[in-house]
Amino acid sequence: MELGQQNSITDVEGVRVGSVTLIQGEGKLTPGLGPVRTGVTVILPHTKSVFEEKVRSAVHAQNGAGELTGALQVMEWGILETPIALTNSLNVGLVHDGMVEYMLKENPEIGNQADVILPVVGECDDSYLNDIQGRHVKQGHVLEAFRATSRTVTEGSVGGGTGMTALGFKAGIGTASRRIDGKLGDYTLGVLVNANFSGNLHVDGVPVGRQFRNPKRNRNGDRSIITVIATNAPLTAPQLRQIAARVPLALGRVGSVSANSSGDISIAFSTAEKIGRSLTPISGTHEAVPVDTLDELFGAAVEATEEAILNSIFASETMKGRDDNVSHGLPIDEVLEVLRKKGRL
Amino acid sequence: MELGQQNSITDVEGVRVGSVTLIQGEGKLTPGLGPVRTGVTVILPHTKSVFEEKVRSAVHAQNGAGELTGALQVMEWGILETPIALTNSLNVGLVHDGMVEYMLKENPEIGNQADVILPVVGECDDSYLNDIQGRHVKQGHVLEAFRATSRTVTEGSVGGGTGMTALGFKAGIGTASRRIDGKLGDYTLGVLVNANFSGNLHVDGVPVGRQFRNPKRNRNGDRSIITVIATNAPLTAPQLRQIAARVPLALGRVGSVSANSSGDISIAFSTAEKIGRSLTPISGTHEAVPVDTLDELFGAAVEATEEAILNSIFASETMKGRDDNVSHGLPIDEVLEVLRKKGRL
Amino acid sequence: MELGQQNSITDVEGVRVGSVTLIQGEGKLTPGLGPVRTGVTVILPHTKSVFEEKVRSAVHAQNGAGELTGALQVMEWGILETPIALTNSLNVGLVHDGMVEYMLKENPEIGNQADVILPVVGECDDSYLNDIQGRHVKQGHVLEAFRATSRTVTEGSVGGGTGMTALGFKAGIGTASRRIDGKLGDYTLGVLVNANFSGNLHVDGVPVGRQFRNPKRNRNGDRSIITVIATNAPLTAPQLRQIAARVPLALGRVGSVSANSSGDISIAFSTAEKIGRSLTPISGTHEAVPVDTLDELFGAAVEATEEAILNSIFASETMKGRDDNVSHGLPIDEVLEVLRKKGRL
Amino acid sequence: MELGQQNSITDVEGVRVGSVTLIQGEGKLTPGLGPVRTGVTVILPHTKSVFEEKVRSAVHAQNGAGELTGALQVMEWGILETPIALTNSLNVGLVHDGMVEYMLKENPEIGNQADVILPVVGECDDSYLNDIQGRHVKQGHVLEAFRATSRTVTEGSVGGGTGMTALGFKAGIGTASRRIDGKLGDYTLGVLVNANFSGNLHVDGVPVGRQFRNPKRNRNGDRSIITVIATNAPLTAPQLRQIAARVPLALGRVGSVSANSSGDISIAFSTAEKIGRSLTPISGTHEAVPVDTLDELFGAAVEATEEAILNSIFASETMKGRDDNVSHGLPIDEVLEVLRKKGRL
Repeated sequence: MELGQQNSITDVEGVRVGSVTLIQGEGKLTPGLGPVRTGVTVILPHTKSVFEEKVRSAVHAQNGAGELTGALQVMEWGILETPIALTNSLNVGLVHDGMVEYMLKENPEIGNQADVILPVVGECDDSYLNDIQGRHVKQGHVLEAFRATSRTVTEGSVGGGTGMTALGFKAGIGTASRRIDGKLGDYTLGVLVNANFSGNLHVDGVPVGRQFRNPKRNRNGDRSIITVIATNAPLTAPQLRQIAARVPLALGRVGSVSANSSGDISIAFSTAEKIGRSLTPISGTHEAVPVDTLDELFGAAVEATEEAILNSIFASETMKGRDDNVSHGLPIDEVLEVLRKKGRL
Repeated sequence: MELGQQNSITDVEGVRVGSVTLIQGEGKLTPGLGPVRTGVTVILPHTKSVFEEKVRSAVHAQNGAGELTGALQVMEWGILETPIALTNSLNVGLVHDGMVEYMLKENPEIGNQADVILPVVGECDDSYLNDIQGRHVKQGHVLEAFRATSRTVTEGSVGGGTGMTALGFKAGIGTASRRIDGKLGDYTLGVLVNANFSGNLHVDGVPVGRQFRNPKRNRNGDRSIITVIATNAPLTAPQLRQIAARVPLALGRVGSVSANSSGDISIAFSTAEKIGRSLTPISGTHEAVPVDTLDELFGAAVEATEEAILNSIFASETMKGRDDNVSHGLPIDEVLEVLRKKGRL
Repeated sequence: MELGQQNSITDVEGVRVGSVTLIQGEGKLTPGLGPVRTGVTVILPHTKSVFEEKVRSAVHAQNGAGELTGALQVMEWGILETPIALTNSLNVGLVHDGMVEYMLKENPEIGNQADVILPVVGECDDSYLNDIQGRHVKQGHVLEAFRATSRTVTEGSVGGGTGMTALGFKAGIGTASRRIDGKLGDYTLGVLVNANFSGNLHVDGVPVGRQFRNPKRNRNGDRSIITVIATNAPLTAPQLRQIAARVPLALGRVGSVSANSSGDISIAFSTAEKIGRSLTPISGTHEAVPVDTLDELFGAAVEATEEAILNSIFASETMKGRDDNVSHGLPIDEVLEVLRKKGRL
Repeated sequence: MELGQQNSITDVEGVRVGSVTLIQGEGKLTPGLGPVRTGVTVILPHTKSVFEEKVRSAVHAQNGAGELTGALQVMEWGILETPIALTNSLNVGLVHDGMVEYMLKENPEIGNQADVILPVVGECDDSYLNDIQGRHVKQGHVLEAFRATSRTVTEGSVGGGTGMTALGFKAGIGTASRRIDGKLGDYTLGVLVNANFSGNLHVDGVPVGRQFRNPKRNRNGDRSIITVIATNAPLTAPQLRQIAARVPLALGRVGSVSANSSGDISIAFSTAEKIGRSLTPISGTHEAVPVDTLDELFGAAVEATEEAILNSIFASETMKGRDDNVSHGLPIDEVLEVLRKKGRL
């Protein structure tokens, strides 16, 4: 399947991503003081007010042992009316508050003449490297992340992904995209992950993770992946739920068994149609796609999610954090060597 | 069915409730300054650390258009490991942060040697009376609410219920309980609601709400009810989900149609068994109850929820809030007169 | 709210209902021979092929302790592609087979050039009156029920409702409808129930059930209600799920606590848009309705379901069945007297 | 992870499997007459009456576009009270009826003194090879399949899997098992699949499917996989749901994207505890396992499901069916050659 122009979630017209990365101090953990290895990443579904121009959306919890605030409302209405933020587990509250602040600035009538909003904030646990008790992501960082939104997505140890570890190696934010065209339509689907889950890394089906032992491979105890999927295909909410439910197929491919403590939660949205305050369409198209196109989009979702996860690892380098805990970066040369031996390159 | 000793959720051994009520200023709304008509209410499942001694739990979203953070994890595991807090919609973030602070003080190993936690915070929209943009409930108020927890539950315009309106009348926190005994076992089930939803008030099946017009009856545009159900019956998580799913039956009785913007979310837990960090039982009993007892508990849940809602209204008095908006208290004498005429007293 | 023209589910343009009622023998039960008190009721969403012109649909299980075959597919796709049949619990298989036979006759390409179908068949347990082990509803009866479909719905002890008992009294099929008009749109919503559930009958909020003791009131052990809701409002699948989820509010009003053995399952569909084989729209409109209209439709669903249940009881007369078990009809005069005393007539 | 003794679902003590295979006629399709390439496979959770000794269970629908009758009740109660049968899509009704017949013979009080039952019947579409309109599996075949139950599971084109095609090659019934031991406990988990879904076959991560073109590889249009997972680990219903939800991870590994028409449904049960008629435990243990053991069981479920799918393909040979449609068996030698080249053997 063809890649999108930048192989990024922002290949979907209008989608923007911004991160603020907080890296401060080193050595012994002093709760509240650091070391700090965390941040926040925000995703804008489009460049206008999401409150004024809501989009169709759906959430799927492959394993609900995580947090995605606002999920119940998305599940109920099939509509997303706020941006999405990703941060560490104990910072959900302050980032939620930052999201409220951002939205009040954008739409001062919220909670006054207009309805309230319930922001969508997802989390992963970065406590292996980060002073997570310190809740170092403040309201201002959230606002800063929104100001930093652009079409360029930095991958690896940035924003909400700063302190993450996945499949035994340093990880964090990853992105990828696929294009559908020809007789099936002309659509783009993009994925952004914050990867922090356990398992044995498989690259292109090869279990390369097993090749490496400590110190090159990290303890396997981290957890959770939040996946954000954007598309401009005019899908209904049930179809977006199906898209979000293809994430576990990609998780299986890269070597996860979706551990009990792994909050494997995905959210998908379509930019094809905008929904107004009365929850009815105000612009765009909402023709559901035919089955063949839908299946192609399912394939795109699986492929792009798999690649976004791998990208999050390939883009991350070894990081030392609190109490000198180390999350080792993937030894890329050695991995390529293994793949070559296995006839994959 | 027999009432519990105090007709309160705290009739379930160990359950504690605390509220902090914030009422300041009057007149024209100045966002950030007031008038303030809000607060926070916290519910402790038992008197020890909920993180160390988790309880079986389940969530049901009759209408998911609201927020209950932590819900996905409760749904996944069938286990509750934090207290529950109720506040206004835009304060979810800061109250969430306050819950983290509280739990870190109780269990400093959270996010350090031990796993992180995802607090359970529910909300209703009090913007009709309250400067909701101001997010006046701060971390300190949450800690104060925990310090205030006791067996005595104040009803009406207190805590998270301070600025609420339900079924056209001033409402807020309400509670009730029922006892099952005899051959069906010896169990207590208690309910606490934060009531803020629309509809035509029915008392004991009589549509008394229709009797009253403005100014005695409020605009019908408020929304949402969060219901917390506690029991000492040794239910499994699927059975607790069933208990939580009986709330809509009570909503129907009091006159709700579960409007689209009404986040009608319920959470149930059982104190019968304590679950340890490895998610296995550490004390108590976990014999599931037989079907006849379960049905009796369903009846208890419906009755106690209906009564808790009515109590939240009967216990509330007229309140004037931001921009001099008024939420009228139920004219109790006139209601009693109607009920008498209808042969109900 | 205004009633539909016939106060029937068939007030929704195109909806047709047909029943075959089987009443044979009396006295002692001889499994396989009788006495027979059962039947089948079928509902057609419109007068053309439902396979060729599918409709948007959703299922809600307030209590899943029942059967509605095909439900998982409706939940997945938000689309209904077969009619709906209602029968007794052990006859689901043969009625399912009859539905296949019917659809193959209508669309011989099913399972050949075209996809297979998964018929929607719901059940309630009529074993109190009926030789349910005998599975007396055969393929031919299903075909006969389809031939009998019309705009006229007979209520009470007919078709799939022949042997049912609800809220302590003889019950079965009931129907009702409501119209929305004016600035909220011009829509009809109709409900058909097969009522067989336990509880204390409330009529217009008055607990009349408690007035009657044996022999005028039946044992309370029956169970389940299948509710079918049709509308011509152009709802999305998530909105139809919301409509189906309003049924428990009506169940609460009439006196149910949704007992553990009660399969309280509802299915809603919209005739506004027709979906083709590739699962894309082929005709009609699919503008989602605004929130105010949606809330009005929720009210219509609650009201019409409540009335359909009451109609199923008011239309049923005392029936003696297997082993001379008797399901007593509601003593209507006495009920009216109670209501008069309570100031309700 | 260690394999079970027979690498079969029957490695879980008490589980029994029986199949009846129907292969008759060839050439042009004459609906109702053949050619016949179908059958039925039944799974018994244990060797006693499942109605009298129910087991904990859960269902997960990765993609609900299929049928598993009885699923709503399993989801509601977390309890399985009938065996499981697998057949073709249009035969669900008659097999359901056969299951009722079987259970009435085993427990004549069902639907008389005792409650009714709702059998669990899953389906896949074998219409590419089979005269599916003919519904050739009759009541007698179901009874025969139960008589044929044993510890030995025949794989490939047998029973309900007779006419199936998966990942482009002839497939059908497959099974595998894994053992957990040592400090994590001593448990067995077994999987049985009926595989009929589309995708590009991956073996051990190698996309071997792409190597083959027609005529050696079949059209990709088939669909659905029903997965049955048994374990003697004393899991709760929420944990069994988690086990069932690990199936999509295995689907991803073997090359599925869970196409829109693919009913990818799984059911898991535990034999550790027996539940009586009043839905309370009557024997066995019900200590939930600790998290580490649970994660190991998740891994076992993913591995065994992946292998069961591959086994279903490796055990199947080329089959010619209706209208001389051919489902090609996997060219095993060539696949092994590819794997050798990729360094996998």
